[in-house]
Amino acid sequence: MSNYKLLIEYDGTNFVGWQRQNNGKSIQQSLEEAILKLSNEKVTVLGAGRTDSGVHAKGQVAHFEISKDLAIDNIRDGINQCLRPLPIAILNVEKVADNFHARFSAKKRIYQYLIINRRPPLTFQRYFAWIIYKKLDIEKIKEAAQYFEGKHDFNAFRSINCQSSSSIKTIDQCSVTNAKESITVQVTAKSFLHSQVRIMTGTLVNVGEGKIKPSDIRQIIEMKDRDKAGVTAPSHGLYLKEIIY
Amino acid sequence: MSNYKLLIEYDGTNFVGWQRQNNGKSIQQSLEEAILKLSNEKVTVLGAGRTDSGVHAKGQVAHFEISKDLAIDNIRDGINQCLRPLPIAILNVEKVADNFHARFSAKKRIYQYLIINRRPPLTFQRYFAWIIYKKLDIEKIKEAAQYFEGKHDFNAFRSINCQSSSSIKTIDQCSVTNAKESITVQVTAKSFLHSQVRIMTGTLVNVGEGKIKPSDIRQIIEMKDRDKAGVTAPSHGLYLKEIIY
Repeated sequence: MSNYKLLIEYDGTNFVGWQRQNNGKSIQQSLEEAILKLSNEKVTVLGAGRTDSGVHAKGQVAHFEISKDLAIDNIRDGINQCLRPLPIAILNVEKVADNFHARFSAKKRIYQYLIINRRPPLTFQRYFAWIIYKKLDIEKIKEAAQYFEGKHDFNAFRSINCQSSSSIKTIDQCSVTNAKESITVQVTAKSFLHSQVRIMTGTLVNVGEGKIKPSDIRQIIEMKDRDKAGVTAPSHGLYLKEIIY
Repeated sequence: MSNYKLLIEYDGTNFVGWQRQNNGKSIQQSLEEAILKLSNEKVTVLGAGRTDSGVHAKGQVAHFEISKDLAIDNIRDGINQCLRPLPIAILNVEKVADNFHARFSAKKRIYQYLIINRRPPLTFQRYFAWIIYKKLDIEKIKEAAQYFEGKHDFNAFRSINCQSSSSIKTIDQCSVTNAKESITVQVTAKSFLHSQVRIMTGTLVNVGEGKIKPSDIRQIIEMKDRDKAGVTAPSHGLYLKEIIY
């Protein structure tokens, strides 16, 4: 068996998310069907991170094992061909060691959240960013973001559907950059709780709106109560940016 | 009567173009219906440039006259509200002199064409750029673009549907920039022939593919024959960027 690592980009708008579901088409299913079509082999494609419905990826990573030994360029072009016309693209393919596992071998996951802060509604980016009409205080958002960094109990920042046994996570970096009307929140960690980046981002937006003080983030973390944190940012502004191995 | 100037952004994907047509919804019709809904007045919205079906705008300009005297912020927010959920946004509104005419007062029009040059298919940008899979020679494209600048007979660079009586136009600037896998062609002129930017861009892509030499552009212009120029680039990579008054 050969083990292949895929670097994947997708527009998550019309999918039920990464993971196979009964209620619609997932990215995982689409990839497995494309590989079956290409190779006539039924494979399981395992991803590094499960993205929810509507969430996009610029650099999702997955792996699959196959008995055929194919040239990596042929795998990339062949899967892309078989995926048509779905908005999923294989950016790169590597042959990797048998023990490489997209999920368990991952050292860091980087997510980006795109906010557009302007008065007019979105046109081109309506499925790719969260529009905030009211002027946000970007300096306060930048100040607040720092409080997320480090090892904390993020119980206040996970969805009620989160199945993780522990809510203690270490955020390596939470940075906020802005250019013109765009605000990008970038968060790096080994792993995340369910909806963690979206709740962190929603809370940062509430800081920018003046509803929460930057220094309050510390207490919100300490109280470990979901109701004390801010709104959950919508899925369509979130991107799985990169997986580091 | 008050005369208002609108700065407009739109995703042209699902429209028949700027101009009212019988075969589907246009941007112009959408704006006129929104203003009717807002003000109860039937107005004509006149645009600076007619964009074809699928062509986008980051800075289309239009004007309309109305008997009511409304605050400009209320016009912007009100039209945007009435346009929902169409991907058209009024970015700015100005009250202008009675003799201001979006089309006839325009001094320069700036169009941008976005090419993505990469092997994998597009995901996020599939309706917003032209994908070219084969590696293009960017230096040759940059060299070729210079030959378009100046006053020329652009008969080879207009569609057979072009109704302009003269094909002599002056291109003030034709610049090519690239960043990662993106190539942007930007063209500035007082006015253009029908499909001119798309045929210029298609010809530049043929140069980048090695099918046409950069210096051949001069002869192609001189021969004034549409068949000697390159392909017409698809509409969905084209943006009306800015109108200068």
